[in-house]
Amino acid sequence: MRFTLRCCSSVAKMLDFYSQFNPSPLSIKQFIDFGLSASEEKSFMFLRKELPVRLANIMKEIHLLPDNLLRMPSVGLVNQWYALSFNEILEFEKADSNSTETLDRFCKTLVKIRNRHSDVVQTMAQGVMELKDSHDVDNQTENSIQYFLDRFYMSRISIRMLINQHTLLFGNELTRGDSSLRHIGCIDPQCDLISVVKDAYENARFLCEQYYLSSPELKISEHNELENGAPNSMRATVEHHADTDILPPIEVSVVRGKEDICVKMSDKGGGIPRSVTDMLFHYMYSTAPQPSKSDAHTVPLAGYGYGLPISRLYARYFHGDIMLLSCDGLGTDAIVYLKALSTEANELLPIFNKTSSKFYRTTIPTGDWSSTQSACMEHRYPTISQAKSSAKHHTPPVSKSKSL
Amino acid sequence: MRFTLRCCSSVAKMLDFYSQFNPSPLSIKQFIDFGLSASEEKSFMFLRKELPVRLANIMKEIHLLPDNLLRMPSVGLVNQWYALSFNEILEFEKADSNSTETLDRFCKTLVKIRNRHSDVVQTMAQGVMELKDSHDVDNQTENSIQYFLDRFYMSRISIRMLINQHTLLFGNELTRGDSSLRHIGCIDPQCDLISVVKDAYENARFLCEQYYLSSPELKISEHNELENGAPNSMRATVEHHADTDILPPIEVSVVRGKEDICVKMSDKGGGIPRSVTDMLFHYMYSTAPQPSKSDAHTVPLAGYGYGLPISRLYARYFHGDIMLLSCDGLGTDAIVYLKALSTEANELLPIFNKTSSKFYRTTIPTGDWSSTQSACMEHRYPTISQAKSSAKHHTPPVSKSKSL
Repeated sequence: MRFTLRCCSSVAKMLDFYSQFNPSPLSIKQFIDFGLSASEEKSFMFLRKELPVRLANIMKEIHLLPDNLLRMPSVGLVNQWYALSFNEILEFEKADSNSTETLDRFCKTLVKIRNRHSDVVQTMAQGVMELKDSHDVDNQTENSIQYFLDRFYMSRISIRMLINQHTLLFGNELTRGDSSLRHIGCIDPQCDLISVVKDAYENARFLCEQYYLSSPELKISEHNELENGAPNSMRATVEHHADTDILPPIEVSVVRGKEDICVKMSDKGGGIPRSVTDMLFHYMYSTAPQPSKSDAHTVPLAGYGYGLPISRLYARYFHGDIMLLSCDGLGTDAIVYLKALSTEANELLPIFNKTSSKFYRTTIPTGDWSSTQSACMEHRYPTISQAKSSAKHHTPPVSKSKSL
Repeated sequence: MRFTLRCCSSVAKMLDFYSQFNPSPLSIKQFIDFGLSASEEKSFMFLRKELPVRLANIMKEIHLLPDNLLRMPSVGLVNQWYALSFNEILEFEKADSNSTETLDRFCKTLVKIRNRHSDVVQTMAQGVMELKDSHDVDNQTENSIQYFLDRFYMSRISIRMLINQHTLLFGNELTRGDSSLRHIGCIDPQCDLISVVKDAYENARFLCEQYYLSSPELKISEHNELENGAPNSMRATVEHHADTDILPPIEVSVVRGKEDICVKMSDKGGGIPRSVTDMLFHYMYSTAPQPSKSDAHTVPLAGYGYGLPISRLYARYFHGDIMLLSCDGLGTDAIVYLKALSTEANELLPIFNKTSSKFYRTTIPTGDWSSTQSACMEHRYPTISQAKSSAKHHTPPVSKSKSL
């Protein structure tokens, strides 16, 4: 017991220490250059500091989550994984970087950490569901969770990128110059976007055909390069045109501009109203029915509504983005933006600082615009203005009456 | 002198009083119902309270602007107009609403106020330019100005809507059941969106032909109703296809969905990168050259970069919106969203309260994500994390060293 306590307080100290430092974002160019030239030793020296910094930055935020969320079993599990992995990397703090044994052990530790964390997304999602099932979740908490999950999952993407690069470059999984010659770690510098789109289309088409026995065509127009598919466009198109034989094709434009690469997918699936578009990037919002909790390990994320927000994080990770523009009654355009230049494709990383820690404490401020919800008062026109309930900073010079 | 002082302090008191109350947003349905049935007296009784409330809410915000902006001559002028008009309406506070003379005088006062304020947009814009010419404007100030202008111009749109409805319904300008029978004040309940689009197209085409001697065609597809044209799409299309004879048409879809009406305009004008899209709704950003100050009264807003942000305010005023999605290297989609139901088309009004007044005082917080700007450090990969300059809330348990 005394040992555990001492151990915890020492971890807390190291967390405080490493969270003082900002993570160092890398560009794709830097990943490539480093992958082509750097030694395993150099990578080890970088990672044994950068990984604890990234882990500490996000672990400090986990601690700021609402208490009742932190008490959920799945969140506790995730917490333990992070503490374990943080500790395991710290063991290399003073290790000899010239020793092959050290480098091998480091590589194996990274693989172990990656495997340990492979279910983090659904386990954390499960934790949020546990909270929803057992507590009333107010707007404030929901807001914190949305903010946190974006940062938490982005941090995870970036940590796994670092681990993957190191283990692919220096581990046994796939040695440099192996099967896929042109890859540098997990980066393909000659990535053929058009074929990525076609692959994604074929995968989605297979599922769509199985279910509906028909699927819309794909019309690709290239204005220079590409990525990603459109399974939901298919579902929407087929269902929206259920009573006709002709399905309008999914049109995809792949455009290479000076700054951006755009992959624009347009369907005629009937679109969605703006009130729904606003919700699409919220974790815990899904158009599909919620999976039962016992299915959680078999169908990992289906129905959690995590597909879009997490896809957008992947796009944003290197300063790209995903945007949706829908015409209610017609169809939807989705654009995946990527940075055209590898030097501009920098990692976007959450930073633990005053701003972020303040976020979890601040209550949602009173709206400074009139409510977006219609008050549904039919004959309100000639009635009288309401006094502001929050206007305590005004000294009413005349009276405190509620109406004029 | 003593009189002026007393007068000012009394205005200040009334401002404090009326700014305590929230403006009452009205829906298009309410405007229509009220226009069809209500008496001039009822409208008078509503406006003599609602107008001071809306004026006071925004005047309190003007006072919170940075001092050096408030000292600009044009801003002083705008300030005076507001104080004058506020006072003029207050004169009706206790007037007899049964008296035809009162009602007539009120109507004339509203017309006078509307005329007085007709140059408010460009005068305030001029004030901001005066500030930029005479001072270094920091991010903080620029942020406040952007926030303020959106609210200020929106407030103005709403006040003019109220004035226009009253004077059109009850004034001499256009009596109920006059020339345009189907109008209710300035509202056309049978508005034909397709013809509005065609009108806008013809206007833009005229200008485009004059300048380039050619213009792209218009392809409208209707999926049920409409608004707005695409002059810039034309310019971009013609310039992007300068070396060919065939100009790709501007495609416009007009869609009536269950919740939204969408007018989607797509051009093949070459698009713009995301870094520029982000700027398009900023006041003071324009692709056209800045007009010389002496032109200000002849060519009101050309080149100020106010077209897009103000158009978006008009769309948002009744809970619509304008969105742009561009593919760098190909073309741009612009969507005007409108609410399909008049009951949901509520006024969106700025409210003066703790949140808004706090906004002007708060400094821009430190970013909680790594910088979006590439640091342009070529070989940063294996270097070491930087200590956070803003991390004063951490107690470094080991040392205050800048690097690990």
